Amino acid sequence: MIRSEFEFIQNIKTKYVLKRVGDDCAVLPKDNLTDLVVTADMLVEDIDFRLDWTKGKFLGQKALAVSLSDIAAMGARPSWAMLSIAVPESLWSYRFPDEFFDGYYRLSAKCGIEIVGGDVSRSPDKFVIDSIVAGEVPKGMAVLRSGARPGHGIYLTGPLGGAAAGLKLLERGERYSARLPSWKKSLLLKQLQPFSSPLGVELREWGASSMIDVSDGLSSDLAHICNASGVGARLDAKLIPIERRIDGLKITSDQKFDLAIDGGEDFELLFTIDPKKIPTGKTDHFHLIGEVTANVGIIELIRDGRSTTIVPKGYRHF
Amino acid sequence: MIRSEFEFIQNIKTKYVLKRVGDDCAVLPKDNLTDLVVTADMLVEDIDFRLDWTKGKFLGQKALAVSLSDIAAMGARPSWAMLSIAVPESLWSYRFPDEFFDGYYRLSAKCGIEIVGGDVSRSPDKFVIDSIVAGEVPKGMAVLRSGARPGHGIYLTGPLGGAAAGLKLLERGERYSARLPSWKKSLLLKQLQPFSSPLGVELREWGASSMIDVSDGLSSDLAHICNASGVGARLDAKLIPIERRIDGLKITSDQKFDLAIDGGEDFELLFTIDPKKIPTGKTDHFHLIGEVTANVGIIELIRDGRSTTIVPKGYRHF
Repeated sequence: MIRSEFEFIQNIKTKYVLKRVGDDCAVLPKDNLTDLVVTADMLVEDIDFRLDWTKGKFLGQKALAVSLSDIAAMGARPSWAMLSIAVPESLWSYRFPDEFFDGYYRLSAKCGIEIVGGDVSRSPDKFVIDSIVAGEVPKGMAVLRSGARPGHGIYLTGPLGGAAAGLKLLERGERYSARLPSWKKSLLLKQLQPFSSPLGVELREWGASSMIDVSDGLSSDLAHICNASGVGARLDAKLIPIERRIDGLKITSDQKFDLAIDGGEDFELLFTIDPKKIPTGKTDHFHLIGEVTANVGIIELIRDGRSTTIVPKGYRHF
Repeated sequence: MIRSEFEFIQNIKTKYVLKRVGDDCAVLPKDNLTDLVVTADMLVEDIDFRLDWTKGKFLGQKALAVSLSDIAAMGARPSWAMLSIAVPESLWSYRFPDEFFDGYYRLSAKCGIEIVGGDVSRSPDKFVIDSIVAGEVPKGMAVLRSGARPGHGIYLTGPLGGAAAGLKLLERGERYSARLPSWKKSLLLKQLQPFSSPLGVELREWGASSMIDVSDGLSSDLAHICNASGVGARLDAKLIPIERRIDGLKITSDQKFDLAIDGGEDFELLFTIDPKKIPTGKTDHFHLIGEVTANVGIIELIRDGRSTTIVPKGYRHF
């Protein structure tokens, strides 16, 4: 039997009682006022990216952004980063490693975080990246996956499906070029060079009860929150914001909807909050998509007046 | 031109002014009394290890030990760890990933450090590990590579060459088995399942002026200290401790000596200290092998009454 990575992690988490494993970041005491949050994300050539689909500077930025997104999902501010890379000998002859590091560095500088270390190794054939980022959050205030309660609203910081649509374009043979129409460039960049949401700290300050970044896909990531919180969820299909540039793909509205709920890597924040806690006039920053229920482990989708149950499809995506 | 990993790191360190990069660990402020030290080490199948040469539990322990050794070399105590692995689909069918994690976990438990996170990804073909460990040291007291001064003694915590001799046995076709003679088992385990030195904290407390773990090889690692400290070194060949079980290999004494000074991965600590600072009666814990000189960047070797200059050979070893 082939196990998934997810099953392996669940198994060791239980067997060895790794209690800090399972959220977007581990939360560790730093000083009297502050907790440290840390995350590591491994990106593997031909699993998570293809070299002929991307550029060094895009991949460098993505490597950092995926980890910054985990820091944001805890409501924390990033402070430092480490980067480990295994580089195939053939790539050293090209500018790729330098462009990769340049993309990584530029985003780190933009976010004001310091690159403090890491490792560089040779690799027999594939390019492998491990991106480590640490951040800080006021003591005890990190937003976990486990705080959602029935009656809380479920919100997104932005539209979904753009990164999955970009992947679809790449699979169809499109490659990024400055001469493409802007909707195509935009979708490709959502896949190749994503940004992490800048709203994590603000959402923590408002009192978000749970939060996760949409990396595996809405259906999977909402399931993570439901499982960790011991709750269920009811989503309203017509409220789920879909990246409008997907229209260019000329696919059916059902297909668009599937990209939005099962496609991952949009790196928007998915959070729950007691609706009363949202400051007035702030609602335009994000999208209400449903409500937390007491129906433990069940995600209902209301669509065209009918209710169905969503089965998470994102676990094995990558 | 094919660049080495070392050249790539030197280049980005200078170009982007990454001032915390270049020691065994990065040193970061934790609280008023304590600094945090962090390190990441990437191990790649068929570059750093071969699956048919090792066992899951050996490799799991080694993955943690190489990073613990960096923490020890700063004079710090380890506190937490993260582990990222990319696992080929073919390996999921076997007990290998579980045995690997078990070896990793057992050493973490023995050292009292908590596994707080990491990542598990699929890999197209090779097993790749990134081992991240953080430790703590009293503020401003981390032992860097840069504190060696002319007149300080150069010391080792134990004999060298065992891990390189174990590698030689593996290359000759030997595989670990409980039925092998004990000298062979011992050499193979030094390569496959090394331990990090427990003496780092004590050496910092005595006042070690610089320290590094012997991972690349004595000649390379001493060169790192000389370059960072702006000094030179004079070694006395007859004082360099050679792992005695190497005798079983039946190689010449010159070959044994080469294994000791160029072979890496023994994970003994190499340190410098003002000889007056060594507590009386503590000299049996380690080996004086030479002296720091003002001859910047030059490592002299006194052997059979003649002086030669050592050219570091370990950079590309791993």
